Amino acid sequence: MKITGTFLDEITHDIPSANWGPQEWARDFDAMKAVGIDTVILIRAGYRDRMTFESESLRQFTPMRPAYLDLVDVFLREAERCQMDFYFGLYDSGVHWWRGEYQQEIDINRRFTEEVIRKYGDRSAFKGWYLSHELHGYGEAFMKIYLEMTRHLRGLKPLPILMSPYVKGSKQFDDPTTPEEHEKQWDMIFSQLAGEVDIVAFQDGQVEFHELSTYLAINKALADKYGLRSWSNVESFERGMPIDFLPITWPNLRFKIEAAEQARVEKLITFEFSHFLSPNSMYASAHNLYNRYREWLTETGKA
Amino acid sequence: MKITGTFLDEITHDIPSANWGPQEWARDFDAMKAVGIDTVILIRAGYRDRMTFESESLRQFTPMRPAYLDLVDVFLREAERCQMDFYFGLYDSGVHWWRGEYQQEIDINRRFTEEVIRKYGDRSAFKGWYLSHELHGYGEAFMKIYLEMTRHLRGLKPLPILMSPYVKGSKQFDDPTTPEEHEKQWDMIFSQLAGEVDIVAFQDGQVEFHELSTYLAINKALADKYGLRSWSNVESFERGMPIDFLPITWPNLRFKIEAAEQARVEKLITFEFSHFLSPNSMYASAHNLYNRYREWLTETGKA
Amino acid sequence: MKITGTFLDEITHDIPSANWGPQEWARDFDAMKAVGIDTVILIRAGYRDRMTFESESLRQFTPMRPAYLDLVDVFLREAERCQMDFYFGLYDSGVHWWRGEYQQEIDINRRFTEEVIRKYGDRSAFKGWYLSHELHGYGEAFMKIYLEMTRHLRGLKPLPILMSPYVKGSKQFDDPTTPEEHEKQWDMIFSQLAGEVDIVAFQDGQVEFHELSTYLAINKALADKYGLRSWSNVESFERGMPIDFLPITWPNLRFKIEAAEQARVEKLITFEFSHFLSPNSMYASAHNLYNRYREWLTETGKA
Repeated sequence: MKITGTFLDEITHDIPSANWGPQEWARDFDAMKAVGIDTVILIRAGYRDRMTFESESLRQFTPMRPAYLDLVDVFLREAERCQMDFYFGLYDSGVHWWRGEYQQEIDINRRFTEEVIRKYGDRSAFKGWYLSHELHGYGEAFMKIYLEMTRHLRGLKPLPILMSPYVKGSKQFDDPTTPEEHEKQWDMIFSQLAGEVDIVAFQDGQVEFHELSTYLAINKALADKYGLRSWSNVESFERGMPIDFLPITWPNLRFKIEAAEQARVEKLITFEFSHFLSPNSMYASAHNLYNRYREWLTETGKA
Repeated sequence: MKITGTFLDEITHDIPSANWGPQEWARDFDAMKAVGIDTVILIRAGYRDRMTFESESLRQFTPMRPAYLDLVDVFLREAERCQMDFYFGLYDSGVHWWRGEYQQEIDINRRFTEEVIRKYGDRSAFKGWYLSHELHGYGEAFMKIYLEMTRHLRGLKPLPILMSPYVKGSKQFDDPTTPEEHEKQWDMIFSQLAGEVDIVAFQDGQVEFHELSTYLAINKALADKYGLRSWSNVESFERGMPIDFLPITWPNLRFKIEAAEQARVEKLITFEFSHFLSPNSMYASAHNLYNRYREWLTETGKA
Repeated sequence: MKITGTFLDEITHDIPSANWGPQEWARDFDAMKAVGIDTVILIRAGYRDRMTFESESLRQFTPMRPAYLDLVDVFLREAERCQMDFYFGLYDSGVHWWRGEYQQEIDINRRFTEEVIRKYGDRSAFKGWYLSHELHGYGEAFMKIYLEMTRHLRGLKPLPILMSPYVKGSKQFDDPTTPEEHEKQWDMIFSQLAGEVDIVAFQDGQVEFHELSTYLAINKALADKYGLRSWSNVESFERGMPIDFLPITWPNLRFKIEAAEQARVEKLITFEFSHFLSPNSMYASAHNLYNRYREWLTETGKA
């Protein structure tokens, strides 16, 4: 297996902007295609007061700053040119759902996705939805957002719906979960999301390396049990270092790719190619990571 | 409007050194000139035990480390070559004024600026003074330093005197100010600095984007009331991210430029070109920011 | 004097990976040689669950992740090609010795270094041992590890044994040591390590610049008293900045080199060339630091 999908990290939230324009994005889609990426996922179409295109519906809910460039159009155009599937990530208020105000988050996103379909619904690369709100365990507000939104999205355009949750692991939390607790939580969550969410791609960077296989196996078994398709989000940035977040060291990436392969997931995606694994990245170490990755693709006959 | 002034961040305080020599600085002054920069402001001529040139007067007060290169001479030469105005920033002990020992800070800087005038006073680019001690609100020690130094500087060489205060905003402080409190504080400050300080360029990065226009309007009205000229310090680095401080994302910079323009300030300067907005920056994302900025200058007829 | 030795920072612990392969390492050894580096020191051959080559002995003690590339072989080959001395750094469990479990740390390293000698003992560049466990003051567990390991290493292959301790200085600790306390501690430590450790290279970055000469003099006098050879570890990364850790500003590096020279140490090494002082570094500011350093070598006739 190799990585065949990547997030597109605009609007950036905690990752520094590369300040790319349409030309730089086009060049990076070429680089993605050269290593076999066929799926791109917009991490979020709007965040707080920023948006990826000039959305009237978002402005009706909250004051937004101008979108000087229509990034959704740029990404769809590049995906079409490179024959990739584009997954559309929702708006994240950054506020409401943290306060439990799920209805507001739902209302904004219902209207917003209706506008999205009016504007971009007929674009040929538009092949999936992405639920931008990330969860690591059961929560009432989350479940309501997920269940209402999946039904709404399927009504708008019946496409695969992807989620990419995280594990409450020791690299990010002082009170990490255990495999048993994780399994219990996600059994409950998936029992409700069965038939609603199509694909689950757990983030793989929060747990220790020696725990990864255990978590991957649990996730795969639970997804199978409830009929969800399993992808793995093989994070290409390093965690647990003094500088957050820089390109991962190649042995760590390879280890996680091979672990996901052993867990027999269906597809590998990454957060994300353009900053951390691209020959065009603003980080020089990503250029080398790209070279290491390509060498490995060649050596293993995956190129 | 476009950005026509920049700080020169040597001695670096919290920004990593690019390790430029005279040749790299010359190249960057060329890049500045190419986008219309006509004013350069030395952020500080000395800091703690470091100095930008071999100053006898600083050595008399405190042990200083050697200045292996005369940066003031380098900057003046480049400013002369590129027909820019050079503003000279004072010495910042990093100690005395934090302890309220304003008299020591004043005494050092009186002697220091006398030496500066002896060494560089006749240089043709020497066109202004910059008060390096940054304040965000009223303070006895600050006011004494400002009032004594402005009178002293004007006596040495009657040039425009610039200050660049910050707002006690929520992006930097846990107990941020309100617009009302900010206005009250700065009315008091400006009432004392009227006729002493010539130009005020508030930093624009500490407040939330939706608050920026409010603060810019207050600042402009207060400056007008007390006869100060208004510039805006349009910061070109991002705030509120895991890594401090990297080049800002272009939409954020553009938003702040346009907000300052709407507030009808006289001139835009930035902290600072060479790290964050330069095609020669040590950060690749700054090269792209420069490209985005130049495209915008062209599109809007400002190039 | 100039810098003639450098650490090789693999396995990386708190410094981001550059993702270099054998080709990039070869190029960097060329750059090292061009500025007179004749000694390379592997900072650690293994750390927690990572190792620089496929070690059977480490796997017997603890689950290790695969070493996809034999870095020790790469480094030895390059050192041989460039006629450099290679110092082999031990395995650091990252766990046992922090808990005082020194016997486990010793047992692992005894078996591990025996394997190392079987695999690499006859390589011509293998010219020294490096004690990877860093200390800043007296500790029972440390002394036991040092004393047992030095005797063991000397029995395996009688080569110079290097240590590179740090000073409990104010740039890293809230309760820093005083010169007097430092001297007292290290007199006690060296009295036990005399005849066991051959070379001591104190790290020079934890203390304030104005204290550096004092500490260098104490260290040199104590090493002389107990018959250890004195090197200085002239750190080429900056400390005390918002972003840890980036290339140091050239004046700081020069100051520390000259201070070490005045203390009459025998040799200067650095942590470390490839990230912070190399024309091949992932950091652009290191390229400039390299240029400044080479200019200085030329100006001072040291090139």
